[in-house]
Amino acid sequence: MTSNTEIAPDQLAYSLDREYVFHSWSAQASLTPRVFAGGEGTIIWDHEGHRLLDFSSQLVNTNIGHQHPRVVAAIKEQADRLTTVNPAHAHLARGRAAQRIIELAGDGYEKVFFTNGGADAVENAIRMARLHTGRDKVLSAYRSYHGNTGAAIAATGDWRRVSNEYAHGHVHFFGPFLYRSEFWAETPEQESERALQHLEHVIRAEGPGSIAALIMETIPGSSGILPPPPGYLAGLRALCDAHGIMLIFDEVMAGFGRTGDWFAHHNSQLNPTGVRPDLITFAKGVNSGYVPLGGVIIPPAIARTFDERVFPGGLTYSGHPLATAAAVATLDVMAEEGIVENAARIGRDVLGPALHELAAVHPIIGEVRGVGVFWALELVADPVTREPLSAARMAALKGLLLARGMLPFIAENRIHVVPPCTVSDAEVREGIALYDSALSDLMAG
Amino acid sequence: MTSNTEIAPDQLAYSLDREYVFHSWSAQASLTPRVFAGGEGTIIWDHEGHRLLDFSSQLVNTNIGHQHPRVVAAIKEQADRLTTVNPAHAHLARGRAAQRIIELAGDGYEKVFFTNGGADAVENAIRMARLHTGRDKVLSAYRSYHGNTGAAIAATGDWRRVSNEYAHGHVHFFGPFLYRSEFWAETPEQESERALQHLEHVIRAEGPGSIAALIMETIPGSSGILPPPPGYLAGLRALCDAHGIMLIFDEVMAGFGRTGDWFAHHNSQLNPTGVRPDLITFAKGVNSGYVPLGGVIIPPAIARTFDERVFPGGLTYSGHPLATAAAVATLDVMAEEGIVENAARIGRDVLGPALHELAAVHPIIGEVRGVGVFWALELVADPVTREPLSAARMAALKGLLLARGMLPFIAENRIHVVPPCTVSDAEVREGIALYDSALSDLMAG
Ligand SMILES: Cc1ncc(COP(=O)(O)O)c(C=O)c1O
Ligand SMILES: Cc1ncc(COP(=O)(O)O)c(C=O)c1O
Repeated sequence: MTSNTEIAPDQLAYSLDREYVFHSWSAQASLTPRVFAGGEGTIIWDHEGHRLLDFSSQLVNTNIGHQHPRVVAAIKEQADRLTTVNPAHAHLARGRAAQRIIELAGDGYEKVFFTNGGADAVENAIRMARLHTGRDKVLSAYRSYHGNTGAAIAATGDWRRVSNEYAHGHVHFFGPFLYRSEFWAETPEQESERALQHLEHVIRAEGPGSIAALIMETIPGSSGILPPPPGYLAGLRALCDAHGIMLIFDEVMAGFGRTGDWFAHHNSQLNPTGVRPDLITFAKGVNSGYVPLGGVIIPPAIARTFDERVFPGGLTYSGHPLATAAAVATLDVMAEEGIVENAARIGRDVLGPALHELAAVHPIIGEVRGVGVFWALELVADPVTREPLSAARMAALKGLLLARGMLPFIAENRIHVVPPCTVSDAEVREGIALYDSALSDLMAG
Repeated sequence: MTSNTEIAPDQLAYSLDREYVFHSWSAQASLTPRVFAGGEGTIIWDHEGHRLLDFSSQLVNTNIGHQHPRVVAAIKEQADRLTTVNPAHAHLARGRAAQRIIELAGDGYEKVFFTNGGADAVENAIRMARLHTGRDKVLSAYRSYHGNTGAAIAATGDWRRVSNEYAHGHVHFFGPFLYRSEFWAETPEQESERALQHLEHVIRAEGPGSIAALIMETIPGSSGILPPPPGYLAGLRALCDAHGIMLIFDEVMAGFGRTGDWFAHHNSQLNPTGVRPDLITFAKGVNSGYVPLGGVIIPPAIARTFDERVFPGGLTYSGHPLATAAAVATLDVMAEEGIVENAARIGRDVLGPALHELAAVHPIIGEVRGVGVFWALELVADPVTREPLSAARMAALKGLLLARGMLPFIAENRIHVVPPCTVSDAEVREGIALYDSALSDLMAG
């Protein structure tokens, strides 16, 4: 048994972790987690003060960076007042957080249902859509991740669903992804058109009248940061409208600043016709994950369904005081300090161009995709066949980046370039230099 | 739109709540939530300082009382260091919390998987049992509540499941409840024996080889605080052993002090033969809900299953720094201040006897059940037929209690008497006097 005395804190944290902590999405035997003890902005460090440049935002959640002093202060202030309250009661931080979120969402939304994270946000959005429509089926993309609980994992399209299929009524389709097109498309326009035709045929084959909801990440994140091609979001909305299907945009990862907008679907390039979903799910960026929080943004029509009828969902910590106080502070700080604008500018003027330059000198980069501080580099063994870089070489790359002082986000054959929305021009340049040097070393090695 | 200026904070909190916040388990139109702004120990108050004696522990979670200064200090300290970290990394508070939980659980457990709350703890326990056994079905009691997400709500037995049945493989049985026996039993022993026979027949009829897990609240809480009769827990264990079924005790509400034990199944009266479950789910009392936290306690055999095989579950905030720092402080304070012992003593010497005296003078109390600070008064319109007291009279009773300065926990025809584990003798006497006077008024009115 690990003794807590006479041992350096990094070593203690590591030993306790290996002895007592069971990890997500892993085989447990050979994990070697890194220890972290503190951070500030884009930097994170261990107990010894070894600093890393955090281009992961942890799990793409610290949109405001590490340890923003005003958010920390708000958490501490609320902690001094009241840390927990039954969701049936009211408290000021929860009301204020809901008000801000509704105002940021823009016209067409009325209420917020708070959850602890993304998975239970998705659960409750699906519940609302099913009860509102009186239908059963839920459509979602194969290239998607929506959370680890019953309905959320069944809605998820990626490998994580496959050993978890205990819910019924879930149907999956292929979304657009031109670089690895499922539709033999050659242009973004063709990809969009064909993906919509594929979806329309799935809807028709499933029976439109049986479909409660279509849930889609506005920009699929975990699956590779896949901005939708021109016309796709408008096409989704049209298909849903034609068949009375509730359109849910899952903005858990894409929302609250990551794309350089408050919500990814507010982005005028991605969504020039201003399509609005029926329900929006959020978590992560809403308070940068400083305290667990997620939720569903609800339009008047769905709110009315539950005015006189009991909504059969809930959880002990819905609208938790610390979590909502952190959200109020986060959203206020993001507005006052122009953090969303910074993410947009960085993406457009600094990070985006630099990543494209990087790709120009490293043929191992098959594609650069993204917007704001939400980018992916698709690494390939062969630029012609687009064969994904092997797991072994990706692991080597991760080691090279860590050795150079960057905490990267590596997913399959991709680097997700996801610094906080607060990242500075200098930090972007530093990060790019580290990618550049690590990629050069990888190619040489 | 509610303007945040020129309005008293209680009024503001109320208006914002009504305008923007969507509530759990409710029709939304006619809610009139109470506003709370602060608390200390067993007392909670609004912005004006109106104080209520909190005999609800909110949702039966503030086992350590409101705003314990050492837990608040621990949250603030961790907030100053690092508020959030990717669960793939390690940090000290998470390791320490896991170590303490494993030590408190006693021999036979090895690791902790952290979640945000009770529902996702149940989800992951069920996932582990299914993958460990390679079987599909999950058995649970009709009188149960296990959470609002896909598998947790399908495992739930009460009305909240009925509009949420989108998961397969869930089977329900009747657990023991002598006062309203499903088995025509007349003694606790008979109830236990017959409930076990009923369960055995359900298992046989479902096919024992198809059943992955049997999940049961050690003391069903939301369904009425129903301590198992003699021999029932041992009988559950024997049935599960006979058929290779994983036994999950859901201790989300019953655990961490509520029964006067660290875990309800440690109680020697309820569990004289010391039966241990295969998996334990927890939340609430682990840190009194000061920061959202839940988890699963895992034995070596199940841990081994995922040593080389990927565990397909996870969540962004697993083992969150603030939540686990709050757990470390809570568990240390509970140990050092003898809070669990206080709950046991209060139940045995003060609260239990007082509730039985109350029942002796109020025939409306059909039964008194419980242990520690986990009691129910079953209110009946007629002590002979045991007809539950009507919803209208329960609502009137709630109003009478609130008017007298108590925040009660009312569920169907019951008062759940669930003060914090820190409740004092004087507060118990005060609470009993309030129940006494409210019940007298109700009978007179
Ligand atoms: C788009 C999306 N939805 C849902 C989730 C699940 O959120 P959580 O991990 O908080 O349950 C995630 C997590 O990464 C996500 O990216
Ligand atoms: C026994 C039990 N299990 C699970 C839950 C669900 O916990 P949560 O509300 O944190 O999801 C509860 C909540 O009351 C509970 O009492």
